[in-house]
Amino acid sequence: MTSLASALNPVSGDVLLDIQHFYARQMFLLDENRVAEWLDTFAEDGVFASTALPEPLEGRAAIERLTRAGVDARRQRGAVHRHLLTGLHAERRPDGTIVARSYVLVVETLPEETSQVWASTVCQDVLLRHGDGWLVRRRHVSLDRKGHALPVLEGM
Amino acid sequence: MTSLASALNPVSGDVLLDIQHFYARQMFLLDENRVAEWLDTFAEDGVFASTALPEPLEGRAAIERLTRAGVDARRQRGAVHRHLLTGLHAERRPDGTIVARSYVLVVETLPEETSQVWASTVCQDVLLRHGDGWLVRRRHVSLDRKGHALPVLEGM
Amino acid sequence: MTSLASALNPVSGDVLLDIQHFYARQMFLLDENRVAEWLDTFAEDGVFASTALPEPLEGRAAIERLTRAGVDARRQRGAVHRHLLTGLHAERRPDGTIVARSYVLVVETLPEETSQVWASTVCQDVLLRHGDGWLVRRRHVSLDRKGHALPVLEGM
Repeated sequence: MTSLASALNPVSGDVLLDIQHFYARQMFLLDENRVAEWLDTFAEDGVFASTALPEPLEGRAAIERLTRAGVDARRQRGAVHRHLLTGLHAERRPDGTIVARSYVLVVETLPEETSQVWASTVCQDVLLRHGDGWLVRRRHVSLDRKGHALPVLEGM
Repeated sequence: MTSLASALNPVSGDVLLDIQHFYARQMFLLDENRVAEWLDTFAEDGVFASTALPEPLEGRAAIERLTRAGVDARRQRGAVHRHLLTGLHAERRPDGTIVARSYVLVVETLPEETSQVWASTVCQDVLLRHGDGWLVRRRHVSLDRKGHALPVLEGM
Repeated sequence: MTSLASALNPVSGDVLLDIQHFYARQMFLLDENRVAEWLDTFAEDGVFASTALPEPLEGRAAIERLTRAGVDARRQRGAVHRHLLTGLHAERRPDGTIVARSYVLVVETLPEETSQVWASTVCQDVLLRHGDGWLVRRRHVSLDRKGHALPVLEGM
């Protein structure tokens, strides 16, 4: 029997860079409230799970509802969020999908206030090749802020 | 008519990495107050625009004046700044220049105090090939802290 | 006589990416309190120096003692740390080792509290090739928080 660890293979440099680029664009789309384009980075049956959510969101429609609610909530507060991704680690599974882990620090800026850390998270994705790009098949976000349930509204 | 979007082309992995490396060095030079070397990363007629500035700084001499004023101001306060760049996205324009966008989080540390987020910004550059390196032809910094005009002094 | 600067050579894109990946894993191991695996990323005679330490830690055993003390201290406080690495710059020395510099922002999350910046640091490593991976031969961490001696316990 093959263990999970041994079933993962390194990705090539080109793939790692490509995934970095994918995330740079994906996070920017969310932060700019470009929800439709952001949703297009998920598989149609993509799943978004988070320790801040009571249960996973299954499919783009479910992900869209909560994402739009998050955008509305931020707009009402005048808040700008930036999802700062570091520490990207990616490996290939035997079926060709990619397991990618990263730190995503969410920084919030409110009008007339200084920016501050809003959440420290670990993001674990399963990515599918799609044309010359990628799609998120499954995302799992773990919030470091374990004792505090974040609003369900936020995409990351 | 060609739209702006379709006029942009992906950069190769080598170029993307090279630009990452360029920024790592450029931000470090500024944070270490190595102003002359930092200025050398701008084209002679480089332009530095920011939502915190009343008008763009045109040319190295103008950029230098404000950068040195920023360095002096930080020294007087005993402040150390770090420009943390994430989310780099780069594309090539038909004329061979690069359009590069990134998040730059500025973290400030004062003596005897903890470090804190000083500003959350989006940095958009036009980069020129120069020998085996790069030069900033035009930089535009957007501060998330929209309601608050940052001091004109800060380079980023 | 050859100056230090001229004795450094650029690394290839593949090596730079490989080092990015190395750090992503190394920081994650520390943040997840996987001390044994983290120690395996240091050479047996590796040295860990920090402006927060009265003297360098020499050898894995010394590094392990303080790292485990740091893990215990964080567990008692219920703190989670994330080491967010940006600004990686790497060069090759004539002897084949790599000099790598990066910014490492340490973000702390306590139960029931928001996350916040805990320390802003500059990390300078000498890295050795080891099989298809890397080992830290010498690490020097400079804390921006110059006026404040951080606990000796923290690995980064």
